[in-house]
Amino acid sequence: MSLKDDMKKLALDVKAASKKMANAPTEIKREALINMAVLLTENADKLIKENKKDLEEAEKKGLSRAMIDRLALTESRVLSMADGLKEVASLTDPVGEISNIRKRPSGIQVGKMRIPLGVIGIIYEARPNVTADAAGLCAMAGNAVILRGGSESINSNRAVAELLQQGLVSAGLPKEAVTLVQVTDRTAVLEMLQLEEEIDLIIPRGGEGLIRFVVENSKIPVIKHYKGVCHIFVDEGASHDKALNIVINAKTQRPGVCNSVETLLVHEKDAEGFLPLLAAKFSKAGVEMRGCERSREIVPSMKVATEEDWHAEYLDLIIAIKVVDDMDGAIAHINEYCSLHTESIVTEDYTRAMRFIREVNSSVVMANASTRFSDGGQFGLGAEIGISTTKLHSFGPMGIEDLTTQKFIVFGEGQVRE
Amino acid sequence: MSLKDDMKKLALDVKAASKKMANAPTEIKREALINMAVLLTENADKLIKENKKDLEEAEKKGLSRAMIDRLALTESRVLSMADGLKEVASLTDPVGEISNIRKRPSGIQVGKMRIPLGVIGIIYEARPNVTADAAGLCAMAGNAVILRGGSESINSNRAVAELLQQGLVSAGLPKEAVTLVQVTDRTAVLEMLQLEEEIDLIIPRGGEGLIRFVVENSKIPVIKHYKGVCHIFVDEGASHDKALNIVINAKTQRPGVCNSVETLLVHEKDAEGFLPLLAAKFSKAGVEMRGCERSREIVPSMKVATEEDWHAEYLDLIIAIKVVDDMDGAIAHINEYCSLHTESIVTEDYTRAMRFIREVNSSVVMANASTRFSDGGQFGLGAEIGISTTKLHSFGPMGIEDLTTQKFIVFGEGQVRE
Repeated sequence: MSLKDDMKKLALDVKAASKKMANAPTEIKREALINMAVLLTENADKLIKENKKDLEEAEKKGLSRAMIDRLALTESRVLSMADGLKEVASLTDPVGEISNIRKRPSGIQVGKMRIPLGVIGIIYEARPNVTADAAGLCAMAGNAVILRGGSESINSNRAVAELLQQGLVSAGLPKEAVTLVQVTDRTAVLEMLQLEEEIDLIIPRGGEGLIRFVVENSKIPVIKHYKGVCHIFVDEGASHDKALNIVINAKTQRPGVCNSVETLLVHEKDAEGFLPLLAAKFSKAGVEMRGCERSREIVPSMKVATEEDWHAEYLDLIIAIKVVDDMDGAIAHINEYCSLHTESIVTEDYTRAMRFIREVNSSVVMANASTRFSDGGQFGLGAEIGISTTKLHSFGPMGIEDLTTQKFIVFGEGQVRE
Repeated sequence: MSLKDDMKKLALDVKAASKKMANAPTEIKREALINMAVLLTENADKLIKENKKDLEEAEKKGLSRAMIDRLALTESRVLSMADGLKEVASLTDPVGEISNIRKRPSGIQVGKMRIPLGVIGIIYEARPNVTADAAGLCAMAGNAVILRGGSESINSNRAVAELLQQGLVSAGLPKEAVTLVQVTDRTAVLEMLQLEEEIDLIIPRGGEGLIRFVVENSKIPVIKHYKGVCHIFVDEGASHDKALNIVINAKTQRPGVCNSVETLLVHEKDAEGFLPLLAAKFSKAGVEMRGCERSREIVPSMKVATEEDWHAEYLDLIIAIKVVDDMDGAIAHINEYCSLHTESIVTEDYTRAMRFIREVNSSVVMANASTRFSDGGQFGLGAEIGISTTKLHSFGPMGIEDLTTQKFIVFGEGQVRE
């Protein structure tokens, strides 16, 4: 059989399993996830052994330190995968929930019922923990999942996926509901992206290159998030204490993640008071500041920010700083350079807070809070499958409910259309 | 300039207009739509004159009668476009609505706010009324729209679009918020489908060929609906009166539309009692019945249904009929052949009604009602932009709210992440 036929057959098997998953009772899905967690914990040694093969191969191929770090499975990482599955098992099952029933003039009662999406394809890179995290969340939402991890983690992924399948089977669910694509060639991804009849949604998780490749080649809807160029705007009359706390937290608490701040905008009336205070704190924290001309007049030690800096997702202890004339200037800058991820205003003014919240159309817009809160866990969604910066279906952090959709339901008593 | 550059420039202008539309107050959007309606009514003669050019061209080209009928603008059709705009103007504006605010353990208040999608591309065939219907609904939801109608209706569409733009301008809104693509070549569609940075959603409206072309070539998310192969299942013990009313209404009230029934499934225990009654009614109504072997044993005058009939969207006074062993048989048949549009059960049994509602995962699932109710107007959505049979974003009839999305909003008081 050709790769095309193989992928089609695999997807058809997963689709058949998805029908069973869609009707699985909550307790059975919970049982499967708990069993998965137990199996991962009990087999930690075996997983670490399989992971070693991937690590050795990675060393041989000369992969970067960062890549190898993401690839490595330790005992604590295995336990954290297991904990993740237990946490997902404890979430409220969204499937079957009826809402919004209204009686229509014809007498029919029309409402909505939440249902699983069906088959979800996850295409990811080195991290083997995605295998368990994504599979658990998709399964709990009543979906089946096709996992296609990177070639560099194939041994780890295979070992994890086998245990996940055992967990499904032990609860009476079909093992095909979590299926790992064993072909690590990129042509397997290409074939997968053609299967619009079998796969309902593709979620790529990884670098921008992978995501662009998926978007360019997919006939299936893709939910994606390229990068996070998050902004904070310090408004005229903002509390300098609040602003300092928020900006420093948003930049330094964990600079390597997508919800850390990358560009700071400061109202011209506050720049002179605020920027020197900030520079003192940032200098202690080892943060490099790159400013516009006006910022550098106030804090001459800043490096010069170029056009590139306004686009930059540093993921590092670097921040771009710009003095703006007013709120219009701040919103115009954000509209031009933001990545639709997260923006925050620090202000004491009610009207401007509400205007910022209303007019900035990123997926998360905040007043007086650190951008670092932009996260499914912090928002109360439970585990997060990803962040969407495209507006269709979901916008912002995505939880279990975003892996479902709603159908219309109608309760009639024999009504016909006049 | 090349066509590629032209389309890019056009889309950038529309995108700029979409920012203004997103912030337009409800009253202003209403005013624009009412003005559009008045302008269409006042200029009915002119529209009919422009439409004549298209009709003459269509005759020359030898287009089908059905196509020419869809293309024709009469005074009553123009008035009905105007009425449609007024109706949309009266809908509740979904933009800016805050919902679901919850206080999180960190102290931040997290909720959602409804926002427009941005730029919507509508690709359609001969009907010039789509120009006004789609533009009005998109604009009321705070979006800008790029309209690309078929070449056969270019003169009509141009005349309608000009009046719509005048309506926008008269309310102080940018005319680019409703932009008609004047290039009728299909390469213009191809170029449009590449503009993923500028266009947020594509909705194709027309035949299956057009829709497949759009899906195959689009880098932008597409909401689509290929066809409606709707089923009714007459359950064991169903009221034969209810069943007759519903089946006859669903088939004959307006057979040419996608929510009319195409396949009837009958429980074997009721087939003998029910099918002869139905055959008598259908024979009077001029409906051709095509049955499975078991149905034909009961009503031998039926034609033979072949595999093709189970897939057929007749859009005509023809119905396929199958006797099934039980509910499992009915659900299995529906799962295999349905187009995810609308299915209905006629039953007096509570448990089986709920099971059908739960397990049939079409976009609309009914108990004891005619499939003909599957419609945005009947469901209380107001005007309908289309029906989605793909699960992402929207599933089923789509109204004004489906032309928006939700962003997360956070009200803080200086909180930072621990």
